[in-house]
Amino acid sequence: MAVLLATKPAAQAEWRDALLALDPALDIRLWPETGDPATIEAVVMWGTHDLADLRRYPGLRLVVSMGAGVDHLLRPPGMPPGVPVARLVDRMLTSGMTEWVLLNTLRFHRQDPAYRAQQAAAIWEELPAPATAARRIGILGLGELGTAAARALAGLGFPVSGWSRRAKTLDGIACHHGPEGFRAVLAGSDILVCLLPLTPETRGVLDAAAFAAMPRGSYLLNAARGGHVVQPDLLAALDSGHLAGAALDVTEPEPLPPEHPIWRHPGIVLTPHAASITIAASAAPQVVENLRRARAGEPLMNLVDFSAGY
Amino acid sequence: MAVLLATKPAAQAEWRDALLALDPALDIRLWPETGDPATIEAVVMWGTHDLADLRRYPGLRLVVSMGAGVDHLLRPPGMPPGVPVARLVDRMLTSGMTEWVLLNTLRFHRQDPAYRAQQAAAIWEELPAPATAARRIGILGLGELGTAAARALAGLGFPVSGWSRRAKTLDGIACHHGPEGFRAVLAGSDILVCLLPLTPETRGVLDAAAFAAMPRGSYLLNAARGGHVVQPDLLAALDSGHLAGAALDVTEPEPLPPEHPIWRHPGIVLTPHAASITIAASAAPQVVENLRRARAGEPLMNLVDFSAGY
Repeated sequence: MAVLLATKPAAQAEWRDALLALDPALDIRLWPETGDPATIEAVVMWGTHDLADLRRYPGLRLVVSMGAGVDHLLRPPGMPPGVPVARLVDRMLTSGMTEWVLLNTLRFHRQDPAYRAQQAAAIWEELPAPATAARRIGILGLGELGTAAARALAGLGFPVSGWSRRAKTLDGIACHHGPEGFRAVLAGSDILVCLLPLTPETRGVLDAAAFAAMPRGSYLLNAARGGHVVQPDLLAALDSGHLAGAALDVTEPEPLPPEHPIWRHPGIVLTPHAASITIAASAAPQVVENLRRARAGEPLMNLVDFSAGY
Repeated sequence: MAVLLATKPAAQAEWRDALLALDPALDIRLWPETGDPATIEAVVMWGTHDLADLRRYPGLRLVVSMGAGVDHLLRPPGMPPGVPVARLVDRMLTSGMTEWVLLNTLRFHRQDPAYRAQQAAAIWEELPAPATAARRIGILGLGELGTAAARALAGLGFPVSGWSRRAKTLDGIACHHGPEGFRAVLAGSDILVCLLPLTPETRGVLDAAAFAAMPRGSYLLNAARGGHVVQPDLLAALDSGHLAGAALDVTEPEPLPPEHPIWRHPGIVLTPHAASITIAASAAPQVVENLRRARAGEPLMNLVDFSAGY
C-alpha cells in the first residue's frame, strides 16, 4: 500500500524525503504518478489536487491536509464519504504564525509605516508611542494559532481579548463568544487579528458592518483566509480613514491579479500566504503516526470535524 | 528648594505634571526660568541642557538623566564634582526597547524588506522561511535593556548569545565577555543587536573589522548610540553585500543631515532615536524617591558609575 503526495513538485520532494527518513519502508508516490490507484491508502495533499480524484482510490483510509486550514477540502466535488481527514497541528506552523502576528502588530503599534515614509522623505521626527498597555488587541479564533498569538501578545503587555465560536477560557485573555461577543471584540480592538477557520458561517465576516464596529484608526491583520474579508469593504474602510491600516497574508484570489488595487494600496502590507509555512520535516511524524493508527484501527490525531467545518 | 526640568518644552510640561501628581508640594522650575539658582536642589535633564550651567547651582544634590544612557552627561565641560547622577531604570523604557528589537529582528528574520519590494512590484512569491531555531541572535550589552531583549528573543525560540564587559550568567542565554567573547558573539550572530552603553571603550566598536567577523548575509540592529558604529564602514559592508541589512535608531549626528547617505540606503531601516521613549508618568516615581533619599542622606537608586562610564 502506498502514500500519494499531491501538491507542488518541490513540496512533494521535501515531503517524500521527510517521510522516508522516518520510515524507509513507505511506498511514496508523487502526483500525478499514482501507479495502481487501488494501492493508494493515504493521500497527503494541498489545494492544487482535484478532490474528485480521491474517489479513484478504493483502498483510501486517510487524507491529510498539508496545513492548519482545511477549507480547501470542503469544497465540492467533495471527499469520498467515510474517509477520515486529518489536518496538521504543528509547532512550526504555530510559531511561524505567531512571528507573523507579532511582526505586523508591532509594525502598526510602533507606527512603522509612518517611520518608513519619514525615512523616504529624510524627516527626523519622533512620533507618539503609546504603551502596549494602551493598545487593545482582539483575536478572532482561539484555536492552536489564535491561542499562541494571544499568549505572545499578552506577554508583551498588550491587553488581549479573543473570540471563538464556542465559549473558552484562557488565562490572561478576555474570552468572548457568540454574536454579542463578536461585536464586543470588534468594538474593543485597536488591532484586530483574524485567525478564524473559513466556514460558511465565517465567510465574509469582516465586512463594512464589522469595520464600522471597530474603533476609528484601528488596524486589521488577516492571516486566516482571504474569504473572511469582503475586500471592497476593506478598501473602502481604509480609503475613508476609518481603518488606519491592514496587514494581509491571504486574499481572494491567490495570487492576486497584477492589476488588483490591494497590491498598491498605501494602507496595506501584503505577504503572499507566507505567514505560516508547513515544514515537512517538522510535520512528517504526525503523518506517519496517523497512518500507523489508521492501519491499526486506532483513533486518529487532529481529525477534521466536518460538522464544525474545521 | 526646587527641581529644575531641563529638556524640550513639551517634555518639561509632561514631567512637571507627572512630578506634581506625585507630590503637589514640589517647587518645579522649567528651564530657562530657573529662579534663584541657589534654590535648585535637583536637575532632571536631557541632552540639550548645557552641563556647565550645573555649576551655577550651589545647593545641587541630585542630577537625573531622563533616559537609560548617560553618555551625554560624560562629555566636557563636565559635572560639578561630588553631585550624584542617577539614570532612569524604567519598565516603560525597557519594554519600548524590547518592542523595537522584536520588530526589527522579526522584520529581517521574516524577510520583510524583500516582501515589501515584492508587493511594490506585484510579485506573489513565497520566500524561504528559516525557523527561529536556525537564526542566531547576538546581543551586545546585557544591562537592563539587553537582558530584557535577550529574554524576549529566546522566548520566541531564537538561539541567543550575549556579550557584556564583565562576566554574567543568564538562564537560556549563552553569555560571553572580554575581547575573545566579543569576537565569538560577532562570528555567531545572524542578527547582531547593539545595546551597549557608549563609553570610550565602546565608541566605534562596530567597525570594518567587526563587520568582517560577522557571517556573510547577517544583519545589524543598533538602538544604543550612533557612536558605536563607524558609519562609513557600515555603509561599505552593506554595499559589498557582506551585511544584508541594518536597522538603526541612532546615528551620528542626530538628526542626520538631509543629504546623509543613511537616509536613502536601501539596506537601512531608520527610526529617529525613538526606540525607547521616556514616559514621565512612568519614570517620575523613582525621581521623587531619589529626591527623598538625597534629602534624607540615604543611598540613591540607579546611580551612574562614572568609573565604568554607565
